[in-house]
Amino acid sequence: MIYLDNAATTWPKPPEVWQAMENALKISANPGRGGHRLALDAGRIVFEAREKLANFFGVKDPNHIVFTSNATEALNLGIKGLLRPGDHAITSSMEHNSVIRPLNELRKKGVEVTVVECDSQGSLDPEDIRKAIRHNTKLIALTHASNVTGTIMPVEEVAKIAREKDIVFLVDAAQTAGSLKINLEETPIDLLAFSGHKGLLGPPGTGGLYIREGVKLEPLITGGTGSQSELDYQPEVLPERFESGTLNTVGIAGLAAGIDFIEKIGLENIRRHEKELLTRLLSELENIPGIKVYGPKDPELQVAVVSLNIEDRDSGEIAFVLDQVFDIGVRSGLHCAPRAHRTIGTFQQGTVRISCSYFNTVEDIEACLNALKEIVTT
Amino acid sequence: MIYLDNAATTWPKPPEVWQAMENALKISANPGRGGHRLALDAGRIVFEAREKLANFFGVKDPNHIVFTSNATEALNLGIKGLLRPGDHAITSSMEHNSVIRPLNELRKKGVEVTVVECDSQGSLDPEDIRKAIRHNTKLIALTHASNVTGTIMPVEEVAKIAREKDIVFLVDAAQTAGSLKINLEETPIDLLAFSGHKGLLGPPGTGGLYIREGVKLEPLITGGTGSQSELDYQPEVLPERFESGTLNTVGIAGLAAGIDFIEKIGLENIRRHEKELLTRLLSELENIPGIKVYGPKDPELQVAVVSLNIEDRDSGEIAFVLDQVFDIGVRSGLHCAPRAHRTIGTFQQGTVRISCSYFNTVEDIEACLNALKEIVTT
Repeated sequence: MIYLDNAATTWPKPPEVWQAMENALKISANPGRGGHRLALDAGRIVFEAREKLANFFGVKDPNHIVFTSNATEALNLGIKGLLRPGDHAITSSMEHNSVIRPLNELRKKGVEVTVVECDSQGSLDPEDIRKAIRHNTKLIALTHASNVTGTIMPVEEVAKIAREKDIVFLVDAAQTAGSLKINLEETPIDLLAFSGHKGLLGPPGTGGLYIREGVKLEPLITGGTGSQSELDYQPEVLPERFESGTLNTVGIAGLAAGIDFIEKIGLENIRRHEKELLTRLLSELENIPGIKVYGPKDPELQVAVVSLNIEDRDSGEIAFVLDQVFDIGVRSGLHCAPRAHRTIGTFQQGTVRISCSYFNTVEDIEACLNALKEIVTT
Repeated sequence: MIYLDNAATTWPKPPEVWQAMENALKISANPGRGGHRLALDAGRIVFEAREKLANFFGVKDPNHIVFTSNATEALNLGIKGLLRPGDHAITSSMEHNSVIRPLNELRKKGVEVTVVECDSQGSLDPEDIRKAIRHNTKLIALTHASNVTGTIMPVEEVAKIAREKDIVFLVDAAQTAGSLKINLEETPIDLLAFSGHKGLLGPPGTGGLYIREGVKLEPLITGGTGSQSELDYQPEVLPERFESGTLNTVGIAGLAAGIDFIEKIGLENIRRHEKELLTRLLSELENIPGIKVYGPKDPELQVAVVSLNIEDRDSGEIAFVLDQVFDIGVRSGLHCAPRAHRTIGTFQQGTVRISCSYFNTVEDIEACLNALKEIVTT
């Protein structure tokens, strides 16, 4: 199969990822739950992974990276852990349900939410964020790049606005970590939610949240933390405060191996390769009659995610034909981001989404383009 | 290493577990996030695992098993998803912090909590639960077996009381699933939280919650569910309502393989083997001067978890010597269950905990006993 659904999860993973996982499953036990060698080995796996992630994102203290089971849990922790009734939050109209649904839940509990509209390419004017700020604005939550159109959001500019106004800035890096450079020492992002199984090339069941020093969150899940067991209440210390219960040590080992792989190839080389694929894809799609492409249509302004439709044909049908006839895997529908589809005008039709990873080749793109050329004529 | 810390996580895992995980990582993508073959394969892995777990626990509708990242998340979902200010909850004094800490958090928000005291062996009189019931009692939360003393709790009796009084009954099966038979068709348990990486022999990062039809819970984590993406709010349908974000497909594949292994060996044979180990351990420990064993000291009344101390010596020191000198891994301290230690009188000293799995042998137990005999004389 030609796999072009990397925005859902990257596939394949580097062989080093499952080698690290096999090793972790076979040689380690439960981190922080014993002083014997197997527990210490597990603790070391988690500690090293935390250090690698901190280093990768330009974070000085690894304890400010907390592991979660996916980006969704990280976003929920950032949003629900911070906001209280009476607070105001700002987000964009291009967000995933993992931001929209938690905010809508909080709306019912007295949190005010402003959704800033993006244009039909999914682009956001940072000044619109500034205009939405109120006296009680506590949070700005923004995706780093849309999972529907790939549109890169003006995170640097919004970070400056948030810092200036002393508002917590949460970035959803599910679609960018491992593709775009993120340096948290340079960019004043306060909370960064990331997925482990997408651009970071780790396995499913991994993700995390960076929490800047001074940002106070309530944990969503409390329980055994392996340390300070004598307390009847959740300890204050990071990362334990947000990591109750047994961690996915095996998955975390795989995630660390994914980071190693990225460091070996070089993030800029990954981005360059993905841009090449994107350039080829976008320039050719323009020439296929009947195909409408959404988003910026500019490799500089988007990650390697492209949404399209063929006339008014059902997006699910196109994806089905790509799979069944051409053995090409893409995703159709709303991609868990209904607001984004309202923004770009595809709420009824959905879109066919083509998304690349470092492991895709120009031949994959050619095959997909040829398939689409056939489909438009049928 | 002789590994006797299986109450923290079982080790080793059956080879089939890793094989299933490797296969899942190599052949599958993101379940429910695409119609192509790799996404469907991932969906099938998750569906089959859900079916196996349902079958294993005597649950008719597999959709009432929801996957979580560990038993702690499942317990948090059961407790925080159910209780509201003004509600009353009953629990025991032998619970793990994964029950105690969520309840204490809710106490601050206006939930009333009664902790029913167990005796010094960690045993609970079900009538004490009945006596604690109030007009506003909404939940009874009880461990199936203590992670400190192995004491099996009177779950059947309490289930009857809860059903009679129309109170939701939550059981923490972290220490029993895979060792003791649990049939949810026969026993009226409403919420069953289980760990995937202990007796069920799966990898870390897995666990789940059974939710009986009619029990209404609010999700803790909301977001993309792969279905009903058009909704701005979390859908009502199970299991998606409680499974936002990308699942740990690889871990879930391993968990399913763990269940297969248990079914192949036979749960009753696993329990018989663990009882043999326990019998040997308990009967010999009795004859070592200076060793105090906690809990029922009866293989019929406990799972293969034994807590002990040597006179007033520090439990951490004993575990350290077992590891460093004898290459035996056990756990010392409070085991994330401070209340349980207050109950059995070891809050200051903690205990040395020896816990077995199906993969331990009588030779392991002999080696541990011989080591303890040496330690008491030094």
